[in-house]
Amino acid sequence: MRKVRYGGAISLDGYIAGPNGESDWIVTDPEIDFAAMLRQFDTLLVGRKTFAAMAAGGQGTVPGIETYVFSTTLRSEDCPGVTIVRERAGEFVRALRERPGKDIALFGGAGLFRTLLDAGQVDTVEVSLIPVLLGAGVSLMPPPYGAVRLRLTKQKVLATTGTLSLEYEIVRDKRDSAARRRSRSNG
Amino acid sequence: MRKVRYGGAISLDGYIAGPNGESDWIVTDPEIDFAAMLRQFDTLLVGRKTFAAMAAGGQGTVPGIETYVFSTTLRSEDCPGVTIVRERAGEFVRALRERPGKDIALFGGAGLFRTLLDAGQVDTVEVSLIPVLLGAGVSLMPPPYGAVRLRLTKQKVLATTGTLSLEYEIVRDKRDSAARRRSRSNG
Repeated sequence: MRKVRYGGAISLDGYIAGPNGESDWIVTDPEIDFAAMLRQFDTLLVGRKTFAAMAAGGQGTVPGIETYVFSTTLRSEDCPGVTIVRERAGEFVRALRERPGKDIALFGGAGLFRTLLDAGQVDTVEVSLIPVLLGAGVSLMPPPYGAVRLRLTKQKVLATTGTLSLEYEIVRDKRDSAARRRSRSNG
Repeated sequence: MRKVRYGGAISLDGYIAGPNGESDWIVTDPEIDFAAMLRQFDTLLVGRKTFAAMAAGGQGTVPGIETYVFSTTLRSEDCPGVTIVRERAGEFVRALRERPGKDIALFGGAGLFRTLLDAGQVDTVEVSLIPVLLGAGVSLMPPPYGAVRLRLTKQKVLATTGTLSLEYEIVRDKRDSAARRRSRSNG
């Protein structure tokens, strides 16, 4: 089955953006091959805020990639080239994964990550760990508190900048799955 | 000159403890040689809260290591075996570093790290990056927001647990030093 892969650049203290969405602390390492990275995906999931930031930067759509924006307020006619999803994200993504295709990228949007994680619909966390401390910002994973175990599957040092390219699988233990099933049948 | 080295275990989302000081998410890798680590230091700096947690765990003092606890409320007579420091931490540590000795460990105590960092008195950040997300907790570095650049100097994968052992130098640029000098002469 296609994987849902969450990722982006993070600081050593775990932020994906500054308190006002700042990204000027992100150093792009010349070794990162964004084109090769994009070829692994045909679908992109983003939250409303991340989409607004992408659109403001002139990158609201990515050629060859179908973009789904999770929002109950955006109107389809205002967002050409993307699909606005108003349904519950967990159920939507569960159905999407059952269709054939390449992997599904979940980019930015910590709130959407939390929702999909709690619904058991995220497979990996893949980060570029930038050598910087920020002190405040948008966290990689929003509350509530609770240990989500990961398994390190890949790590690479990008020598020019000291960025670490890290890939983790999300470990689903039996207790977690049972809790999710209960939460699904109740919800 | 002896170095001041800040460190400990962190989650991928940058927490050194859970919201109530929880540390049960920390997996100790068998490769970590705590005895060898301790031999690099003869001095330990801790904040009041970290000291309270150490004392509660029966580890208020470490043989062969002089412990300084920064607190304006603790009384020396209640804390045998350690030195209570009431002076300003930055000035105290600046003087301490000029004396001969091994390196100085700064353990836990994110608030003390912030104070000493702002005073230009921390040289390295050394973390064991545990493969876990927590969602909330005590941050590696407290606010305010502002990029503190690091230089990756060492990295090692601990294969049993997937913990990454990472060492960074704090990069002091000219602008930072100037700002610190101004802040010192004003303060």
